[in-house]
Amino acid sequence: MKKTLNEIAAFLGGEVIGDGDVLVERIRGIDDAGAGDLTFVANRKYRKKLATTGAAAILVTPGTPCPGKNLLVVQDPYVAMGRLLNLFHPEEEETAGVHRDARVETGADVSATAVVYPGVHVCRGAKVEAGAVLYPGVFVGRDCVVGEASVLYPRVTLYRRSLIGRRVVLHAGVVVGSDGFGFANPGRQNIKIPQTGYVQIDDDVEIGANTTIDRGTLGRTWIQRGAKIDNLVQIAHNVVVGECAIIVAQVGISGSTRLGAGVVVGGQAGIVGHIEIGAHAMVAARSGVHKDIPPNQIVAGTPHLPHREWLKMEACLPKLPEMRAAIVALERRVAELEKESEKKTV
Amino acid sequence: MKKTLNEIAAFLGGEVIGDGDVLVERIRGIDDAGAGDLTFVANRKYRKKLATTGAAAILVTPGTPCPGKNLLVVQDPYVAMGRLLNLFHPEEEETAGVHRDARVETGADVSATAVVYPGVHVCRGAKVEAGAVLYPGVFVGRDCVVGEASVLYPRVTLYRRSLIGRRVVLHAGVVVGSDGFGFANPGRQNIKIPQTGYVQIDDDVEIGANTTIDRGTLGRTWIQRGAKIDNLVQIAHNVVVGECAIIVAQVGISGSTRLGAGVVVGGQAGIVGHIEIGAHAMVAARSGVHKDIPPNQIVAGTPHLPHREWLKMEACLPKLPEMRAAIVALERRVAELEKESEKKTV
Amino acid sequence: MKKTLNEIAAFLGGEVIGDGDVLVERIRGIDDAGAGDLTFVANRKYRKKLATTGAAAILVTPGTPCPGKNLLVVQDPYVAMGRLLNLFHPEEEETAGVHRDARVETGADVSATAVVYPGVHVCRGAKVEAGAVLYPGVFVGRDCVVGEASVLYPRVTLYRRSLIGRRVVLHAGVVVGSDGFGFANPGRQNIKIPQTGYVQIDDDVEIGANTTIDRGTLGRTWIQRGAKIDNLVQIAHNVVVGECAIIVAQVGISGSTRLGAGVVVGGQAGIVGHIEIGAHAMVAARSGVHKDIPPNQIVAGTPHLPHREWLKMEACLPKLPEMRAAIVALERRVAELEKESEKKTV
Repeated sequence: MKKTLNEIAAFLGGEVIGDGDVLVERIRGIDDAGAGDLTFVANRKYRKKLATTGAAAILVTPGTPCPGKNLLVVQDPYVAMGRLLNLFHPEEEETAGVHRDARVETGADVSATAVVYPGVHVCRGAKVEAGAVLYPGVFVGRDCVVGEASVLYPRVTLYRRSLIGRRVVLHAGVVVGSDGFGFANPGRQNIKIPQTGYVQIDDDVEIGANTTIDRGTLGRTWIQRGAKIDNLVQIAHNVVVGECAIIVAQVGISGSTRLGAGVVVGGQAGIVGHIEIGAHAMVAARSGVHKDIPPNQIVAGTPHLPHREWLKMEACLPKLPEMRAAIVALERRVAELEKESEKKTV
Repeated sequence: MKKTLNEIAAFLGGEVIGDGDVLVERIRGIDDAGAGDLTFVANRKYRKKLATTGAAAILVTPGTPCPGKNLLVVQDPYVAMGRLLNLFHPEEEETAGVHRDARVETGADVSATAVVYPGVHVCRGAKVEAGAVLYPGVFVGRDCVVGEASVLYPRVTLYRRSLIGRRVVLHAGVVVGSDGFGFANPGRQNIKIPQTGYVQIDDDVEIGANTTIDRGTLGRTWIQRGAKIDNLVQIAHNVVVGECAIIVAQVGISGSTRLGAGVVVGGQAGIVGHIEIGAHAMVAARSGVHKDIPPNQIVAGTPHLPHREWLKMEACLPKLPEMRAAIVALERRVAELEKESEKKTV
Repeated sequence: MKKTLNEIAAFLGGEVIGDGDVLVERIRGIDDAGAGDLTFVANRKYRKKLATTGAAAILVTPGTPCPGKNLLVVQDPYVAMGRLLNLFHPEEEETAGVHRDARVETGADVSATAVVYPGVHVCRGAKVEAGAVLYPGVFVGRDCVVGEASVLYPRVTLYRRSLIGRRVVLHAGVVVGSDGFGFANPGRQNIKIPQTGYVQIDDDVEIGANTTIDRGTLGRTWIQRGAKIDNLVQIAHNVVVGECAIIVAQVGISGSTRLGAGVVVGGQAGIVGHIEIGAHAMVAARSGVHKDIPPNQIVAGTPHLPHREWLKMEACLPKLPEMRAAIVALERRVAELEKESEKKTV
């Protein structure tokens, strides 16, 4: 595909500075971009590279100084690049139908427009809706639903009764609906509490590779509309993840905790069970959250603190040895003063 | 299934307060429970919900105040609920036999009462005992044993020589017997040390989705009877996990470390290699354990401390900025006093 | 296989102390070793076991005191044991060929000497080179390359365009090339940025079970020659892992970060995005790295510090409660001195 910068500006709605007739054939990162390439700068850290890039054109925010380059000025270069990538890299069409080496049990209901690869297993009572794509090795348990146009990459496993909405993307190795970790008298008897609930994943959710989502003990574990979850995340039984929440890789969320809409949780953070994280709260990467967080609050650290307090606390940590030495020195000096003072008093 | 509260009391052995003839059709969480539902309160945090629940009956501990409700008083409501869930949700019977789309190599020994789904692969020399269930995509390597009545969910992989006991449950995506991480001269040459040992998992163990257990370099990695391991846990080569131990999600245990019986390790904790964790010790979530822990000790933090010491230490962290300011102020005041003292002496 | 200690010394190049004619049939850990077994001591912690082991012979470093035992003295007992394990446990030969229950799409190119198990899926445009082994359930996406003699264990998933070098080992459940986690306006709109790049894994890399490696947003995520990555690691889009780097289990590396040659990252550490870790730097287990690290530096902690500083800081943490008490006591004593001083002045 080739487009002039002017054509791209018309598509994205931005303003051209420089040569609008320059041809763009590819989108490329700023380090690799050369003739025929459009690149972008969204992270300020990479601005210094503007001067030296050989790119044919650059997507920038308003006010980015860059003399002598062909620029396309847009409000959000990252979003604009995403739209262009969709234009330059349209999704390949898959051929509809159930491959003869797929195994669909009697009593399963698979839409004629679904794509079911060889090596897929769909159990009785399950429903696969129009346009859904099931890659090789996908397992759809009894009484599951896979909604319209959802994509399940290779080796995704849905335990029985999992409900997957529309346009959901589950990456390779995702496990939905495994038993929650419920054992009575732990460390002594480990009596198994049956896990009889299910998982509900709403429309437009995306879940990263090898992430695990346990089903409810009773009732559901619930991932709400538009939430995005990264790789290797653990979501325990009866957790609720709010609409459009963002959960970065390797986070763990313990049982029955509820995240409000738009909550953002940084990578490797851990959240204890039975608490509430208010809407649009943000949890910094690697934090350990042990109690409720009010809406819109930003927290960090273990135990977590409001972000500003945490920054101040954290700045003190490397100073601990000199603080300790200062205390010892003060104790010596004060003892000396006390001796002096006593002498004089006597 | 419908049972009166009196019938349930007879089954569980508890005492009814209120209407023993009320019918119970389902078990439900306290937020969702209505007519026909029995619910429970095990966590004190949810006691306040007793007053407003519409449940037909409630499992409670002795002495729980709850006027006007139908109660079933039992010693442990959580365990009692587990027993009821088994009663109300009996496991579905699977049809015994090897599906014609399963691949059992010549020289494998699969019991006639085992259930082997399509897409399973059993290598030569492997043994699958009576009543075992292998879901689609399970891989059983050479010379493995899968014991009686064990259940391997979809995509479980057993590398060669893995020994799985009876009534073991391995959730989807579990990997047993992958190579331990052994490289000599790391960061320079990375000389691979062959991993020639195996994994032994004893009876009644349960292991969560996508957890990985490496085989021994020499000898075995050993998960002992009744241990329960959650999702996304890493168990390195030659680790021993003691009987009835509990390991919560995303924990990592390094090579050759030994956990005694009944050890409980909280989520996301990490334990270094070549140490001993004594029987019934408890490691708080997110702790970093760097040396031996005596039996029955409770530890927390990184570096880990006895739990009480850790609580005191942790309470100081948010005070660090004011401690630092206090030290600076003290230094100023002491300098002032020293100046005064000197003046007077002179 | 049986060999005398003298024969083994000839093979390894070491010096025998004691009986060179003793027969060795097996290699075993020091706790289990008896007659016919050769064992080794590499970790000093296990030296005390030398006196009591029943092993026929022991691999030791020069100068290890051990009267009355048969010793084979070598420079590096761990490497020597690795070489012996290769000798005593040669890899089993696999039978070349594509199994009839494997699914190779038209337009894929599979070498006649490759081993393709049943249940493997190779998409059109993919290339599988000589001697490669694909275990059951492996998925090779469109236009992938699997290089000579590489081994993909069960359930490995390669998304489209992944490039795998020669002699690469990917353990069970590894996911290569899943979408990077790129969403604009996170927590509000979560606009998906298409991930159109790929993953390149160079020769002699080994990657542990259930590890995930996302493809580049644009361009590549790149694991360079000889790097070794453990289980359950997360490598985000456009990360570069340098030659012979070592990454221990459960580490997470965020987008566009670059690790130099020979970098060693301890287990459960986390590294933020868009930074540089210099060649042969070492990051201690469980560290949180938030900014560039110069070459050869050793760091630890969250926020990370040079290792020596971190040791000093860490030693202060348990002292925090007494430091706080000391400050309070000092404030009282200084106030007292100030009062005295004022009295005298007046």
